[in-house]
Amino acid sequence: MERYSIDQDSLWMSRALELAHKGLGTTSPNPPVGAVIVKDGVLLGEGWHEKAGELHAERRALNHARLRGHGDDLKGATMYVTLEPCSSYGRTPPCTDAIIEAGLSRVVYGAVDPDERHSGRAYTILKAHGIRVRSECCATACELFLRPWVWSIQHKRPWVRAKVASTMDGRLTRAGLKWLSCQESIRFAHQMRLESDAILVGGNTLRTDNPALTIRHSYREVPRIKQQPWRIVMTMDSTSLPEDAKVFTDKDAERTLIREDVGNLRAMLQSLYEEHQVVNLMLECGGRLLRKFLEEGLVNEWVQIVTPQISGGPDLLVPGYYLPTERYFEQEELIPSGKDIIVRGLIR
Amino acid sequence: MERYSIDQDSLWMSRALELAHKGLGTTSPNPPVGAVIVKDGVLLGEGWHEKAGELHAERRALNHARLRGHGDDLKGATMYVTLEPCSSYGRTPPCTDAIIEAGLSRVVYGAVDPDERHSGRAYTILKAHGIRVRSECCATACELFLRPWVWSIQHKRPWVRAKVASTMDGRLTRAGLKWLSCQESIRFAHQMRLESDAILVGGNTLRTDNPALTIRHSYREVPRIKQQPWRIVMTMDSTSLPEDAKVFTDKDAERTLIREDVGNLRAMLQSLYEEHQVVNLMLECGGRLLRKFLEEGLVNEWVQIVTPQISGGPDLLVPGYYLPTERYFEQEELIPSGKDIIVRGLIR
Repeated sequence: MERYSIDQDSLWMSRALELAHKGLGTTSPNPPVGAVIVKDGVLLGEGWHEKAGELHAERRALNHARLRGHGDDLKGATMYVTLEPCSSYGRTPPCTDAIIEAGLSRVVYGAVDPDERHSGRAYTILKAHGIRVRSECCATACELFLRPWVWSIQHKRPWVRAKVASTMDGRLTRAGLKWLSCQESIRFAHQMRLESDAILVGGNTLRTDNPALTIRHSYREVPRIKQQPWRIVMTMDSTSLPEDAKVFTDKDAERTLIREDVGNLRAMLQSLYEEHQVVNLMLECGGRLLRKFLEEGLVNEWVQIVTPQISGGPDLLVPGYYLPTERYFEQEELIPSGKDIIVRGLIR
Repeated sequence: MERYSIDQDSLWMSRALELAHKGLGTTSPNPPVGAVIVKDGVLLGEGWHEKAGELHAERRALNHARLRGHGDDLKGATMYVTLEPCSSYGRTPPCTDAIIEAGLSRVVYGAVDPDERHSGRAYTILKAHGIRVRSECCATACELFLRPWVWSIQHKRPWVRAKVASTMDGRLTRAGLKWLSCQESIRFAHQMRLESDAILVGGNTLRTDNPALTIRHSYREVPRIKQQPWRIVMTMDSTSLPEDAKVFTDKDAERTLIREDVGNLRAMLQSLYEEHQVVNLMLECGGRLLRKFLEEGLVNEWVQIVTPQISGGPDLLVPGYYLPTERYFEQEELIPSGKDIIVRGLIR
């Protein structure tokens, strides 16, 4: 006899997913995960993963329940977690152990662990300890949310999100105007920075705009533990970069990296993942470098802030001849943003 | 004691505006107007203006009421009409006469007649005959709807609506693909043709695409009295046009006009208005000619069908250097259309 209907499961899983969002931008190379513990329809505790090396969402939810005086109630309770619990020793001990020790009687999780060595293992282990398990509850939502992390595991390179701002006729900038986008869109762009591990620009952008590339106007409060994203400057010749650029001289200067491997973007991406645990990379580069990423099929997601203006002019969003293959969007989203329109989609 | 509250007025005016829409595309140089007659909350008759030289909406609504056996009920009834009734002899006798003769006791209208010689005259005349009058009910909606006609009266040239289809990066076409837009967007574009008096293309478009420029897939049923829109071909040299182009050889060939005055677009527009009663002109030309219209500030409305694709390539939506002044949008509308997005706005 199940105490919780399927609808109850989806409801609690939504809360777990909400918690998972709080980890966006701070957990890499780990995934952002959320968990809640429920008994007889009452929330005992909840938690999310904040940072690699620290407690997983499952253990934080258990601790939270104990802290609230619900230690004894954990027996027979249900845990909802957005990703299959880990079952092996990493930087922290397996969450399956903690679940078993706490005496939970049911575990509901969203996405299956994408690592083939572990996927489905928690299911087997928990079952073997007499715990009822439901896998793939709200799986689509959980998987969509986790896709940058899954991508990075499978491809050993970051999920690349291009952020561009253009006019209706595909121009990047207008002479003499620094910001085309409205305030709402600028906050949206800063929110994207907050959710990124690194931001990439070309040497030209540095010379022309001298951007700080720091998080200053995001919608969400910047978590205490969030470091400024890595600032990656790509250039053919690092001696040509202005030494007094903000990214080299501000208080976060140690978060700036120069990369000269423009000729092999794929290898560059792999090294960002391996050496600096970059899972979410945001491109804020100009049209020429953006085009190189598109040509090599290295862009996963496209976020375009469109200003309702017709401009003309030389600075094209994507300059040059036809791209080798068309880049269609999937799972488009249309977001009104002040006077602008934001179009977001995955690139096929 | 008013029998109809203000909310009742707005409700019946909405119906009149709905009827006015049925005239879109067939009434030029007259405005599309709708009218309903109501007594004690019951609709007696309704009508809309179909075509210049034929009955106005007011007389059609009166006739409709009589045809339905409500001739005697007209005394004491209220008429709702989207535009101030005409008070002078044109191709038909003044509607104010018909209203007075029918014995209506109240008239509610939307927009005031924009012609200074007539504006407010119906108000005075009807009042003088003891008829209660309310002016400017739902005026904003009625004026928005009538703006192309008002524009044409005030400027003696058509309201110009540019229809363009582009990729996300502002490319017009992609090599080898005739239609970028999805079926829904094509129907939308044909609906725009239905609402236009003329469609303008350049000689290049004729040579490259050989379009028919006829209404074939519109959402609304094509009214029996709707002629195919004029097809205007602009060229520097008419001898260079392909004689076997569809617009010269199909059954609507007499609806095709060639214009060589590319050097003076404003004068060309004025002659279209004066000689052919073109109030609503739709541009379906390529980037270069479109740019000329933009440069000279001759575009009133912009309708862009955006296909969620990044393409690159040589065919820019608006080629060339910065436009002399930025063209910002007002009263933007965002219309999802199949996989496409349609952005519609007035150009400041």
